[in-house]
Amino acid sequence: MAPARVIERKRDGERIESAILEAFLAAYMDGSVPDYQMSALLMAIYFNGLDAEEIDVFVRCMLASGTSLDLAYLDAPRVDKHSTGGVGDKVSIALAPLVASLDVFVPMMSGRGLGHTTGTLDKLEAIPGFVTELSLAEAKRVLEEVGCAMFGQSAEIAPLDKRLYALRDVTATVPVRPLIAASIMSKKLAEGLTGLLLDVKVGSGAFLPEVDRAFELAEAMVGIGTTRDLPTVALMTAMDRPLGAAVGNGLETMEAIHCLQGDGPPDLRALVLRQAAEMLMLADSALEPGLAMDRAESALDSGSALERFVRLVEAQGGDAGVVDDPATLATATVRREVRAAQGGTVGCVEPRVLGQAVVALGGGRRRMDQEIDLGVGFEVLARVGDDIGVGDLLAVVHAADEAGADIGEQAIRTAVEVGDGDPGQQRPLVSHIVDRDGVRPA
Amino acid sequence: MAPARVIERKRDGERIESAILEAFLAAYMDGSVPDYQMSALLMAIYFNGLDAEEIDVFVRCMLASGTSLDLAYLDAPRVDKHSTGGVGDKVSIALAPLVASLDVFVPMMSGRGLGHTTGTLDKLEAIPGFVTELSLAEAKRVLEEVGCAMFGQSAEIAPLDKRLYALRDVTATVPVRPLIAASIMSKKLAEGLTGLLLDVKVGSGAFLPEVDRAFELAEAMVGIGTTRDLPTVALMTAMDRPLGAAVGNGLETMEAIHCLQGDGPPDLRALVLRQAAEMLMLADSALEPGLAMDRAESALDSGSALERFVRLVEAQGGDAGVVDDPATLATATVRREVRAAQGGTVGCVEPRVLGQAVVALGGGRRRMDQEIDLGVGFEVLARVGDDIGVGDLLAVVHAADEAGADIGEQAIRTAVEVGDGDPGQQRPLVSHIVDRDGVRPA
Repeated sequence: MAPARVIERKRDGERIESAILEAFLAAYMDGSVPDYQMSALLMAIYFNGLDAEEIDVFVRCMLASGTSLDLAYLDAPRVDKHSTGGVGDKVSIALAPLVASLDVFVPMMSGRGLGHTTGTLDKLEAIPGFVTELSLAEAKRVLEEVGCAMFGQSAEIAPLDKRLYALRDVTATVPVRPLIAASIMSKKLAEGLTGLLLDVKVGSGAFLPEVDRAFELAEAMVGIGTTRDLPTVALMTAMDRPLGAAVGNGLETMEAIHCLQGDGPPDLRALVLRQAAEMLMLADSALEPGLAMDRAESALDSGSALERFVRLVEAQGGDAGVVDDPATLATATVRREVRAAQGGTVGCVEPRVLGQAVVALGGGRRRMDQEIDLGVGFEVLARVGDDIGVGDLLAVVHAADEAGADIGEQAIRTAVEVGDGDPGQQRPLVSHIVDRDGVRPA
Repeated sequence: MAPARVIERKRDGERIESAILEAFLAAYMDGSVPDYQMSALLMAIYFNGLDAEEIDVFVRCMLASGTSLDLAYLDAPRVDKHSTGGVGDKVSIALAPLVASLDVFVPMMSGRGLGHTTGTLDKLEAIPGFVTELSLAEAKRVLEEVGCAMFGQSAEIAPLDKRLYALRDVTATVPVRPLIAASIMSKKLAEGLTGLLLDVKVGSGAFLPEVDRAFELAEAMVGIGTTRDLPTVALMTAMDRPLGAAVGNGLETMEAIHCLQGDGPPDLRALVLRQAAEMLMLADSALEPGLAMDRAESALDSGSALERFVRLVEAQGGDAGVVDDPATLATATVRREVRAAQGGTVGCVEPRVLGQAVVALGGGRRRMDQEIDLGVGFEVLARVGDDIGVGDLLAVVHAADEAGADIGEQAIRTAVEVGDGDPGQQRPLVSHIVDRDGVRPA
């Protein structure tokens, strides 16, 4: 079928037969369908969507366009977690070694920060010497040795997705849910997993702030996993406030280390443990939730998760001294305390404002090719519902210079609302579970 | 503004400010906005449309991208007609010399056939020697000498439109009404006219078969003309059956000559006269409709229109002998009479079936670069409402070979419905007039 006819079909709201869509995508990869036809199709998909079968074709073709990690030889469960990205979400850094310490392999291919959310690779690079750009062979070696590996997407994985993403980025077709789902899942499916946990953020700080959209994305991703025979579970988690107190790359890494040391903010600890328990159940479907949670807690509290983290850092070339001496992490020169100008109750800590402020401070990217400052960010001490008095410490801004500190202070004063009223209901930390059987309250 | 932000705006249903849209189109012409961004914008326009101001920017940029015919020095009215294309529509060939014979200049830039409708340039080329590819200087010379000229769009006119059309053709974004309107009008505005008549076909054989769509197109085009200070009138004319009896390039030219000779089908004659009268009134706003019609009729019946046609043919290098000897026109070798297999009343003569059959016979194009056979086509004698008996002649197929004649016969048997019932209402030949004051019955 002529490419224009394929585009026309989607434009008119019809579905594209699998063989035809597959041929179109193959022709795009070999160059006979040019970018201008693909971008027209992408925009038609923006308006008319894709059904489950069409999404599956995208996923299949993305997978088939590159190589996959074949990890079956490990003969043990392999479970990863993917987060759709939120402000202060440093869970992965504690989670991967924790789960690996419980005899589940975690081949964690991660991304970099873009827009108002930071990325795991950037956070890890705040550790001196830590190398995230591993070849697949290197990643396998670390995985075999440590039980987990944390590395960037290699060019060998899903090059079709890479090309499509670059095109979507410049043609206003990034926010197409089925393609977001296909893009994420094609990479996770290439990891050779036996189970996958998704952390789908819900709330104003999430990638998709509309609640319905977040649920649709979760269902689309779980649907893809199910179709491709990968047991997949999504947790819908709160992103109406930052997770934990630290926002910004190096600060978040430090907080994740605190968590591994049994300290750190209770919400971070709770989410790490909950996700670890879900991953253990994905690794062993016979495991009871209570027992899974017990195991996760004892791995964290016994120090075995921390010990595994130290091995991971060393295996990837990093300086494990950060565990004892946080000053070796990337830091910023200027620290400014921001104190309450009025007393009252904290009604809101707006995560998106803080995420955008990190970008403004130089700690995040507007474009993928930007260099970033890993030391800047916020320690946000004010939590929703706190009663505070005039002069109480709201946050500490970490900035490269005084001008940055001004921007950061302004962001804190905007993000942290102090008033008289009832702060209202916050979202539960984990509100729902989505799996092959549908959506249910957590 | 970054091109992706412009696309995003239209994607989200917002309007694009004139200066921003103008910059985007200029960047497209200079190559800094690539085809893949333009095609994404075009698809977003397919879904979300353009408002009058945005359309005007497209028209302005199309015009400004090339040269225009500056005909003000002629110091006399210059009126053209454009038809949206229908099956059997050969009006232009009789109309241009007829109006020129009444002291109105007709600089008629025409197109070629594509899809199920034929084009004026192809029909004229059925006359041996007739050259339609004139430079603007040559077109001006013919116009000065004869009072009318019939020629193809030169590369000098609206190159932005040409590039956009080529891109739309391969990205399923041809049927975007505001862009169809802008494309047509940018070329007509480049002709240096003082008035423009539009013939917008309505019915199953029209380019836009849905009645509402045809009216919207007419209103969009009249709106553009009005905005650009070109008095523009649209006639909504019937395309629920072919116009006249001849369908196919050479056959249509012959029928147009018959019309100029005072013969030919009455519907063709009526439409030629009506359009001529409208063009005369566009040339002289004080002219009464009755008087305009009288003048048109006498130019046709006196032979002065025919005489002007002969001068036109000679000025453009053609063999004027066709007027006396139709055999010199392009003809087909095989003629097959198709006779009624059953008696009854003709309920329908489906124009689109006949138009598509001309393409199947080799007389039309699926792609713009195809060579075509100017001799093939149909003389359709059956008219809606005719009572016919078994064996009565329905049509004569003109084909290159017997296989073609089989295809043609089959098309006639499909297109001409003979039954017992009332044929129902046909559309009036001219149903409505659309001008700057709106739509009214004709």
